[in-house]
Amino acid sequence: MSSRTKIKALLTGTQTGTEVTVKGWVRAFRQNRFIALNDGSTNNNIQIVVDFENTDPTLLKRITVGAAISVTGILTVSLGQGQSVEIPATTIEVLGDCDPDAYPLQLKNRPSLEFLREKAHLRFRTNTFGAIFRVRNTLSFAIHQFLQEKGFVYLHTPVITASDAEGAGETFHVTNFDLNNIPRTETGEIDYKQDFFGRSTNLTVSGQLEGELGAMALSDIYTFGPTFRAENSNTTRHLAEFWMIEPEMAFYDLQDNADLAEGMLKYVISYALDKNKEDLEFLSQRLADEEKQKPQNERSEMSLLDKLQFCLDNDFMRITYTEAIDILRDSSHNKKKKFQYLIEGWGADLQSEHERYLVEKHFKKPVILTDYPKEIKSFYMRQNEDGKTVAAMDILFPGIGEIVGGSQREERLDRLEQRMDELGIPKDELWWYLDTRRFGTCPHAGFGLGFERLVLFVTGMGNIRDVIPFPRFPKNAEF
Amino acid sequence: MSSRTKIKALLTGTQTGTEVTVKGWVRAFRQNRFIALNDGSTNNNIQIVVDFENTDPTLLKRITVGAAISVTGILTVSLGQGQSVEIPATTIEVLGDCDPDAYPLQLKNRPSLEFLREKAHLRFRTNTFGAIFRVRNTLSFAIHQFLQEKGFVYLHTPVITASDAEGAGETFHVTNFDLNNIPRTETGEIDYKQDFFGRSTNLTVSGQLEGELGAMALSDIYTFGPTFRAENSNTTRHLAEFWMIEPEMAFYDLQDNADLAEGMLKYVISYALDKNKEDLEFLSQRLADEEKQKPQNERSEMSLLDKLQFCLDNDFMRITYTEAIDILRDSSHNKKKKFQYLIEGWGADLQSEHERYLVEKHFKKPVILTDYPKEIKSFYMRQNEDGKTVAAMDILFPGIGEIVGGSQREERLDRLEQRMDELGIPKDELWWYLDTRRFGTCPHAGFGLGFERLVLFVTGMGNIRDVIPFPRFPKNAEF
Repeated sequence: MSSRTKIKALLTGTQTGTEVTVKGWVRAFRQNRFIALNDGSTNNNIQIVVDFENTDPTLLKRITVGAAISVTGILTVSLGQGQSVEIPATTIEVLGDCDPDAYPLQLKNRPSLEFLREKAHLRFRTNTFGAIFRVRNTLSFAIHQFLQEKGFVYLHTPVITASDAEGAGETFHVTNFDLNNIPRTETGEIDYKQDFFGRSTNLTVSGQLEGELGAMALSDIYTFGPTFRAENSNTTRHLAEFWMIEPEMAFYDLQDNADLAEGMLKYVISYALDKNKEDLEFLSQRLADEEKQKPQNERSEMSLLDKLQFCLDNDFMRITYTEAIDILRDSSHNKKKKFQYLIEGWGADLQSEHERYLVEKHFKKPVILTDYPKEIKSFYMRQNEDGKTVAAMDILFPGIGEIVGGSQREERLDRLEQRMDELGIPKDELWWYLDTRRFGTCPHAGFGLGFERLVLFVTGMGNIRDVIPFPRFPKNAEF
Repeated sequence: MSSRTKIKALLTGTQTGTEVTVKGWVRAFRQNRFIALNDGSTNNNIQIVVDFENTDPTLLKRITVGAAISVTGILTVSLGQGQSVEIPATTIEVLGDCDPDAYPLQLKNRPSLEFLREKAHLRFRTNTFGAIFRVRNTLSFAIHQFLQEKGFVYLHTPVITASDAEGAGETFHVTNFDLNNIPRTETGEIDYKQDFFGRSTNLTVSGQLEGELGAMALSDIYTFGPTFRAENSNTTRHLAEFWMIEPEMAFYDLQDNADLAEGMLKYVISYALDKNKEDLEFLSQRLADEEKQKPQNERSEMSLLDKLQFCLDNDFMRITYTEAIDILRDSSHNKKKKFQYLIEGWGADLQSEHERYLVEKHFKKPVILTDYPKEIKSFYMRQNEDGKTVAAMDILFPGIGEIVGGSQREERLDRLEQRMDELGIPKDELWWYLDTRRFGTCPHAGFGLGFERLVLFVTGMGNIRDVIPFPRFPKNAEF
């Protein structure tokens, strides 16, 4: 197939004066003369100049928004405004027509994000979603790059699992049974021995416990894979299927853990600002336009680009849960009863409104909250000497809330077993997890980063369904 | 937590003469004097020299195989054989004990691979599995690196899906139903409207169809995620859960596709040879040792390292299915009836024995087989002008068989719909897939690379269950 050059490379202008072939999709066709062509390699289009007097009118009619075309011509410095180079077309071939009357993405009326969610198979072709998914790509590569440079081993933990160890509860069943004819034991119970895996299985809610097994031999590992929650949450921040990054590090304590997480977040944001400058400029402008619809007092103080830069330039605020409670209880917000859930005192689980208050109103920067009451955190978190708190940490971001949750892990077998007993977590099912505490245990820590929440933050989008290609949520598994 | 240096960095010797702290797990302790310590950063151990006369005997007793320790001392040039540097210990702290009587990985009797499969939570601590999972890590990063450099966008396609479009059939159900109480419609059928997603869903067998949607806007995309088969296959080459890489490229034909796949395989093998030299030398020796148990005529002609290098140095053989059938039919193997399935003529589906004959006996190198009969390939493959074949390709590797399967995709709506009708594939369920052919279709192609098969090939292991951390197969979902 004749080779083509991607638009991103053409726009650098280094090939000016040479004949090039470009292939892509028509974004606009003005005055029967100027085609804006895009191939997804960049948010910017290349301008094709059509010699309409010498072009077959039948061909001209087929150059419609959405059509795939191949164009050959000499890459030329543009004298017009708005672009540095253009291609006066020598030949144009229509590879795939696009009926303007049927095509859902006619740009006359700018389609809404809601409408495009219904057309998720085509929304990659819009400026907004092209930018989002290029940024998402960059963020995921930057995470690998950051951790690989530090010698971490990427570990694929299982998606199908028999344990629901986080106690998160809301898991999806995975089964090979004919649901019309589920085998039963003699006593009438479901006979899971006959299921594919010989036991009841579900979709993982976290790769952490398996990740720890890797860290207790390879030192530093991370997972980056899909995780699942069967929660009936129809919010802008929850998905039934989402991607998580879960680093686990032997010989790390809570401060090391926080340092790594903060370093990683700054690295990947910086990487995206560098690599996807044009996409982020576009998304920053998109957000500014969107916010113009809002009343002044609901608009962001900073643009998206400013907000990202601000994250890089400032240390994240590190405070304990106990300090946070004091701040919240004494806040005028609490005294004036502006919180839906008032903070009465120590022990309360923080709601989204409290997290956002700390981050957006009080500190006005990302916050790392540590040392939560053990009652509101998981069994595997390391118990502090005060007998009341555990070495947990949450990282809270403006507009997003919790983006990272982590902890130092309880490496002491007796303490771990005691906590499992208190919480009724079956030790026999987790024999393999406990084995790591029996044989050469060591201090270690880790965290989970919700990837879509990171993409939300960096792209400035408001709905998590817009930052994953094909979102899964209650009553929706289309595409 | 006091900072430590990883063993990989220490063994470079650049820190000789300075005090260092190292943390890891004891692999051996000889003569109450020499500790071989490993932290997973490399296959090699660092030697710790214990001043046993001045060390508390209670501490000495706790230095057992598997124990986690922290050691401080001056990194010193070693005068002994077998290592360039060592650490005479100033202080030793036991972080986690390991009872020698209970620890399953005592090295007195070298544990078998089968035994270690039962101890998958601990097998990372052996030389073999440390090497395998470091190589696996490198291969996965190399894939990202290769495709990112070419401007591909990494796309996370959904794991939970309502379509079983490949027609692979053997999918796992995903459901939120209480299996003891599945809701029914008035007519007695399962009422999937009440399930979490409002319809019947399963685990994906491939991200290809969704990947194509991305390629038809972003040009070049790839997936890299888990895929699932509920096949009751207890073989050394099948898993119920495995990872696949699926690149999809707009404006690619079958030859472009083959070029990309061959280039990618060579790149990642070369990358691993460079980055994981010591691990691959170890695995090459392991394989040589294993093969010594076999009769001479069953041993490999080449060592693992030679085989990998051979792949880099030679063009993959490219032939059509039709040419392959001629070779197989006329082979002495066929005439002497050494094949279990004799090749009678054109149209036969190739079995593993035929693929291996072509690769291992006839060409003695990787083979790219193209243009298969349409009857034995999927509906979405582009129909060739001969009316009999499709623009499919399989890449066959020695010892592995099929490692890549791909094709140019049928971009012509009428041909695609006709083939779907012939095969009874419901067009209404795939409305979104067909939309890409309605609106700006273009020639495009892609392939799937089975990641574990690649890891099998590069590590020289014989069983696919040994190259994924926690394998999933019939009657097994442990850990």
